[in-house]
Amino acid sequence: MSGRSVPLEIGTAVGAADEHHVRVRGLDLVDDLLGELTYTEVALLAVTGRRPTPAQAKVVDAVLVSLLDHGLTPSALAARLTFWVAPEAIQGAVAAGLLGAGSVLLGSMEGCGRLLTDIAGDVAAGAAAGDAVDARLRAIVDAGERIPGLGHSLHRDGDPRAGKLLAVARAQKVAARHVEHLELVVERAAALTGKALPLNATGAAAALLLEAGVPWRLHRGFALMSRTAGLVAHIGEELESPVTPAVRAALRAASRIEPEV
Amino acid sequence: MSGRSVPLEIGTAVGAADEHHVRVRGLDLVDDLLGELTYTEVALLAVTGRRPTPAQAKVVDAVLVSLLDHGLTPSALAARLTFWVAPEAIQGAVAAGLLGAGSVLLGSMEGCGRLLTDIAGDVAAGAAAGDAVDARLRAIVDAGERIPGLGHSLHRDGDPRAGKLLAVARAQKVAARHVEHLELVVERAAALTGKALPLNATGAAAALLLEAGVPWRLHRGFALMSRTAGLVAHIGEELESPVTPAVRAALRAASRIEPEV
Amino acid sequence: MSGRSVPLEIGTAVGAADEHHVRVRGLDLVDDLLGELTYTEVALLAVTGRRPTPAQAKVVDAVLVSLLDHGLTPSALAARLTFWVAPEAIQGAVAAGLLGAGSVLLGSMEGCGRLLTDIAGDVAAGAAAGDAVDARLRAIVDAGERIPGLGHSLHRDGDPRAGKLLAVARAQKVAARHVEHLELVVERAAALTGKALPLNATGAAAALLLEAGVPWRLHRGFALMSRTAGLVAHIGEELESPVTPAVRAALRAASRIEPEV
Amino acid sequence: MSGRSVPLEIGTAVGAADEHHVRVRGLDLVDDLLGELTYTEVALLAVTGRRPTPAQAKVVDAVLVSLLDHGLTPSALAARLTFWVAPEAIQGAVAAGLLGAGSVLLGSMEGCGRLLTDIAGDVAAGAAAGDAVDARLRAIVDAGERIPGLGHSLHRDGDPRAGKLLAVARAQKVAARHVEHLELVVERAAALTGKALPLNATGAAAALLLEAGVPWRLHRGFALMSRTAGLVAHIGEELESPVTPAVRAALRAASRIEPEV
Repeated sequence: MSGRSVPLEIGTAVGAADEHHVRVRGLDLVDDLLGELTYTEVALLAVTGRRPTPAQAKVVDAVLVSLLDHGLTPSALAARLTFWVAPEAIQGAVAAGLLGAGSVLLGSMEGCGRLLTDIAGDVAAGAAAGDAVDARLRAIVDAGERIPGLGHSLHRDGDPRAGKLLAVARAQKVAARHVEHLELVVERAAALTGKALPLNATGAAAALLLEAGVPWRLHRGFALMSRTAGLVAHIGEELESPVTPAVRAALRAASRIEPEV
Repeated sequence: MSGRSVPLEIGTAVGAADEHHVRVRGLDLVDDLLGELTYTEVALLAVTGRRPTPAQAKVVDAVLVSLLDHGLTPSALAARLTFWVAPEAIQGAVAAGLLGAGSVLLGSMEGCGRLLTDIAGDVAAGAAAGDAVDARLRAIVDAGERIPGLGHSLHRDGDPRAGKLLAVARAQKVAARHVEHLELVVERAAALTGKALPLNATGAAAALLLEAGVPWRLHRGFALMSRTAGLVAHIGEELESPVTPAVRAALRAASRIEPEV
Repeated sequence: MSGRSVPLEIGTAVGAADEHHVRVRGLDLVDDLLGELTYTEVALLAVTGRRPTPAQAKVVDAVLVSLLDHGLTPSALAARLTFWVAPEAIQGAVAAGLLGAGSVLLGSMEGCGRLLTDIAGDVAAGAAAGDAVDARLRAIVDAGERIPGLGHSLHRDGDPRAGKLLAVARAQKVAARHVEHLELVVERAAALTGKALPLNATGAAAALLLEAGVPWRLHRGFALMSRTAGLVAHIGEELESPVTPAVRAALRAASRIEPEV
Repeated sequence: MSGRSVPLEIGTAVGAADEHHVRVRGLDLVDDLLGELTYTEVALLAVTGRRPTPAQAKVVDAVLVSLLDHGLTPSALAARLTFWVAPEAIQGAVAAGLLGAGSVLLGSMEGCGRLLTDIAGDVAAGAAAGDAVDARLRAIVDAGERIPGLGHSLHRDGDPRAGKLLAVARAQKVAARHVEHLELVVERAAALTGKALPLNATGAAAALLLEAGVPWRLHRGFALMSRTAGLVAHIGEELESPVTPAVRAALRAASRIEPEV
């Protein structure tokens, strides 16, 4: 069998493993990280390529805690239903749950991260913050879209997680321009729409992730880390005292027909 | 439209959300957890229903760090390839990567957790630890199966993560019967098979998770939490300096035909 | 940048594409297949490497039709819930639904396919069919496991799809040893367990797939092809007249707490 | 335990199962469909709610055949890599592959289906077809986006599947306004961009699906049905003569470091 020469081009700066070492971002996993840093710190290191400060880690821990669970969400239900019929593969049930972290739930984090990044870019290019916020919000409203990071279908008077997240950022002294711009967004959105649209958890989380150096394109990734823990907890309960049979009974009771649910 | 009465049966002890509160295991997410506990601590709380001790959290942080990344694994490649063709849904790329946390990679954790749980059950029922280990190992070998938690295709002389994980458990004083049984497993497996089969990271991780109160059926779930962070880092690199084009070029160079890869 | 020589080893017999051709199992997709064969015929060609006879295609069409939908199954619900929160990626919703085609639902097909393959192997090795069936069933019952392919939680008096599937196989004259063994399985299972356990659709489907040359390890794959169509139909309805809001309302009504579902 | 009354609101027109019947779109699966219709016909029935004509079924069979496989695509590789490490759950490997049917590959079908739907809407509202096409194309080009359905990175001189798909539609006499608009799109795109952008398979497939009554929002769903069969074939080959070890070796050979792939 003949062969062809291939250029040596494949390489990742994220991590590597050889016979005696595992490295993450050039640091030795065993000597430098294991037992020294928390999950959140190494996650930030892996994603940003930089060792986080203790304050950054605290703030991102708050983000990861804030989104870890929200009861029987569509995502948790999808994971539970999947585990019920495919118990051989817990990774399949978790994956089914995570596939629900999209543009409507959790993913709105991404939209707010993008908005704040755009505003920061406008300001860096010389715009006054208030003007940048107004122009960006007007464009969103004119396009008939919802302002990301504001409002919540359940927490109508205000998402209790949002204010606490900002308080953590201030206490850790990592609240800077992105938190400031977010506060302007809340203020101007009310003026622009004539409705009080309180900040929600994903909006605050986006600002904190930006302050910790995480680009907006990866914000949804932190929601996935967070929610994975919650989904594992739901699946664990499904093993002990499953909710799925009652869910199926309730759906049968509410059905015009007798579905096989 | 008429209605039917349904019994009030659906309830989860994991978490709940109402208009003003989000609760995890009965604690108020905002007042009790956010800003107070780390991701790892709240993950343990959600999964086990108990607030972990600082030592338990340290040990589980070590587990989550140990499995966070291992370079361009099949799982990381699947996530990168998926993101390349479906960039609109980062949750899909992460899910594709997690679906590779199965019985061959990462999932072997589950097998070792089950073995250690069985051994602990034998001992609780009156067996001597050495006898219990011998009997369980012999059954595995007789069935032609691999002993879970031992050996690694890359780290042939020993997985550098394994010893460090056990050291962290000892330093935190949470190494008890499960770590002791695991050491017996390593020792007796060598005698039984005539081969030195060094402990691997998933074996050590299983012992530590059991010591921290996580049942074996959920061990793979902690591998999923851990690897989610690594996958997000790989996807982040794919955004900045993608590896996928070089992967496709290398595969084309190595192909007998010109595949569309 | 230097290079290394790689052996030319990567090749797949399934399919290939170059600038001017797409081939499946060596046939030209455009000249030989497109417009000539049905989806089912090309699926069989791709999977088995052989062009199916018209009778084999008819029988596999019956299998694919039989499992295409079963109302609001856990799988269909998971797909609908996922689409509700992540409408940007229909592939994610379908994937979430397919992840529920596991060992409890649909996947039992795989178990029955394996049993029939084992029985055929015993018979090929010289055993009488009745003896082979008895021995295999006894081993399953002794292990405390359910006999795959028999019984259905909803269709308690008999799965209406099963008999029709066998009738199609007979009409197409592809019912041979596997259908015969399956009938023995039904007969002896009743004698062995003392309960009438009627054949279900996945059991009949497994026998037909074996008669059409599909190995048991890929039977679940045909369930996935079939159900993908059903899931797309459910997602399509979700776009027009969604069921998800009523599902969430029913679950709220049945909940001891007010979950965010 | 008390109860609450829930309105009888949950119902799906897609399908239903009770003890003695399974129904799809109101037809009896056993009496009306099984053994009578092909997979493709029942898929169309389930999705559109209407029994397809033989010509529509022929055309959609051509679509499903055309996209069934394209060699070692990123999607096929992701499925193979996933199966390699998680062989216990074939549904997970197929799901991982399908998650790659996104906006870059296969999903561009959706974009072309939307464009043709928009053009048909413009024409129905009184516009001349040529003007509608020109305006829609100009808007796409002005936005800096690629025209969906045109061009292919591998089939640079023309996708061999595209012309054949249109020929099948004409032979079956289902080529009507959408095929006509598509031909205008090809013609005007060349004039507008100054480049010959040949029609690709997903563009032609979109026109045929519209002619068969499938709304554009579900076009990607037909790509998923189609590709599921190809993915099962790839996984089947992985069981017999796996490609994954050679893939990993080629990547190691091409790597600057020794990754664990």
